[in-house]
Amino acid sequence: MKLRIAVIPGDGIGKEVVAEGLKVLKKLEELSRVSFEFKEYPFGAEHYLKTGETLPDWAIEEFKKFDAIYFGAIGDPRVKPGILERGILLKMRFELDLYVNLRPVKLYHPRLTPLKGKNKIDIVFVRENTEGLYAGAGGFLRKGTPQEIAVQEMINTRFGVERVIRFAFEYAKRSGRKKVTLVDKANVLTYAHDLWERVFAEVSQEYDLETDHYYVDAMAMKMIRSPESFDVVVTPNMFGDILTDLGAEIVGGLGIAASGNINPETTGMFEPVHGSAPDIAGKRIANPLAAILSASMMLEYLNLEKESKWIEEAVKRAIAENKVTPDMNGNLKTYEVGDWVVKFLEVV
Amino acid sequence: MKLRIAVIPGDGIGKEVVAEGLKVLKKLEELSRVSFEFKEYPFGAEHYLKTGETLPDWAIEEFKKFDAIYFGAIGDPRVKPGILERGILLKMRFELDLYVNLRPVKLYHPRLTPLKGKNKIDIVFVRENTEGLYAGAGGFLRKGTPQEIAVQEMINTRFGVERVIRFAFEYAKRSGRKKVTLVDKANVLTYAHDLWERVFAEVSQEYDLETDHYYVDAMAMKMIRSPESFDVVVTPNMFGDILTDLGAEIVGGLGIAASGNINPETTGMFEPVHGSAPDIAGKRIANPLAAILSASMMLEYLNLEKESKWIEEAVKRAIAENKVTPDMNGNLKTYEVGDWVVKFLEVV
Ligand SMILES: CC(C)[C@H](C(=O)O)[C@@H](O)C(=O)O
Ligand SMILES: CC(C)[C@H](C(=O)O)[C@@H](O)C(=O)O
Repeated sequence: MKLRIAVIPGDGIGKEVVAEGLKVLKKLEELSRVSFEFKEYPFGAEHYLKTGETLPDWAIEEFKKFDAIYFGAIGDPRVKPGILERGILLKMRFELDLYVNLRPVKLYHPRLTPLKGKNKIDIVFVRENTEGLYAGAGGFLRKGTPQEIAVQEMINTRFGVERVIRFAFEYAKRSGRKKVTLVDKANVLTYAHDLWERVFAEVSQEYDLETDHYYVDAMAMKMIRSPESFDVVVTPNMFGDILTDLGAEIVGGLGIAASGNINPETTGMFEPVHGSAPDIAGKRIANPLAAILSASMMLEYLNLEKESKWIEEAVKRAIAENKVTPDMNGNLKTYEVGDWVVKFLEVV
Repeated sequence: MKLRIAVIPGDGIGKEVVAEGLKVLKKLEELSRVSFEFKEYPFGAEHYLKTGETLPDWAIEEFKKFDAIYFGAIGDPRVKPGILERGILLKMRFELDLYVNLRPVKLYHPRLTPLKGKNKIDIVFVRENTEGLYAGAGGFLRKGTPQEIAVQEMINTRFGVERVIRFAFEYAKRSGRKKVTLVDKANVLTYAHDLWERVFAEVSQEYDLETDHYYVDAMAMKMIRSPESFDVVVTPNMFGDILTDLGAEIVGGLGIAASGNINPETTGMFEPVHGSAPDIAGKRIANPLAAILSASMMLEYLNLEKESKWIEEAVKRAIAENKVTPDMNGNLKTYEVGDWVVKFLEVV
């Protein structure tokens, strides 16, 4: 079985961690019957600064023919904020209509959490990924004057909200999870989030699963106080952005936060949650585990559950034996962590 | 010196904690030259359910003649979310144009933080309080149909953004703080938050203070990883809502989170950050410290710095001696905590 993967290493540490993810995937070719064909794309800040191109439409069309996209990170201090984000990352999410951003928050070892007395955290966030405040709609009036007004639109549709909520319930059911929690702010966002509450109530009727609800502010607190009380969480785009970073932090930081941008009907895109981290780029201290775990998610999504689990087990072992980078209190280099994961793969 | 205070206990535990705040303020009349005239208003869920009235315009007009408003909490499961929030709490913030929501995040005792190895947290959040996603603008199209669209507008104005950023810098300067951090999401909210970044850059030029910047997702992480690295933080309304609840949690929870809704040119409103907590209302276990600390903020704001400090010291002592409610691992009742604070007031 040959899988075709489009690879976009991107900028800064994106390149460094994707290299380790690929190393791990290549090792799998030896250990199982899977094989990969990787095609690398140069998109990112360098490419933009040289050519003025972010992510061309032809590339999006090409990506659709792959089994998956494996993405590193983009961002560079020389480029104005928003250009690469909207031109590359959000463009993939939107143009490929990847309406689910799946972000597990899983504590692999008690020493990794900054929280006192917690040792079991296992949440899966289903973040809406194609509308809300990320729609990109808005504008200025009287820009640059004392009378300036700047407007950003949070746009939600029944279509968009329903499919992501339904995905959350399906996911919970399929993975044997018990509860789906909705996080919104309907007490203030009485239009956009009223829709979320109505659709959630409706869809939940079709499932034999527990449900729960928090306003986003209360959720931020509850994730610190009792993260063990959550199972599957579904939430709008912007809140998902904030809560999943918070989630990453309570299980060890961005260094191990993986994500999948998916739509069951098209090519998915898998990426570490972290950015390009220009401050540590090139120092070979970037944590490759988030990229490696994203590769694991990619395989799970491609129905290679066994291989996906192998990678996850190898990562767990690397963490247990402290074969990790400085951000996780280890003293290894990026490529050494990758090497260890490869080594542990041989024995799982 | 006589201060006229409008008091709105509101619903649920709002009533219980405001009673303790008033007890403490009354004690001050014995200990210093200040005296109070309290006028109580019935607004809240009960009143709404009985009369259909949330907060009438005449009350807003009346409030303007007071020195301050002391507010408990509103909210009741029998009332649809949004009605009391928008009809009472947000109405006060908006109609009195209380553009600053000042929320200190201060660790009074190391045992109160859920974070490992942290013992110094002292942040002051300056949350914009009269625009952004809270503007209440938006609407539905084809409501209730599969084609429904729900829109919520994030509206920022140069006027509104500038005054709150300026307040943050003035506050930092006046209180001897060193750094002002801006938190936004300009890489995605390229209109509304581009305005924030431009204004922040401009206003910061006028001050000899350090500045810093985080995107909101990174901020949520950093508040867990190194809360000690923040000083004054200024942020839009919605992000302020989330981050200050998170902030409350890392210093002991909503039970001690106080806030002031202010505009230097008009009557301010002081309230605990917590809600009406219907689940524990009437059980006499609500933590009154947030309400008591809000009373302390109110006095500071009314230039009674000495009296304000006394209250804060008495609260610190109550915490140090574990004279607290169950949420803080104590075993006292609401009124007992109030009594202890009163007792400690006599000796500070
Ligand atoms: C880089 C940025 C546009 C992006 C987002 O806000 O979605 C990132 O924070 C993420 O969570 O993937
Ligand atoms: C009750 C709600 C409208 C309010 C808000 O969102 O501002 C509350 O959460 C707060 O922070 O004071």
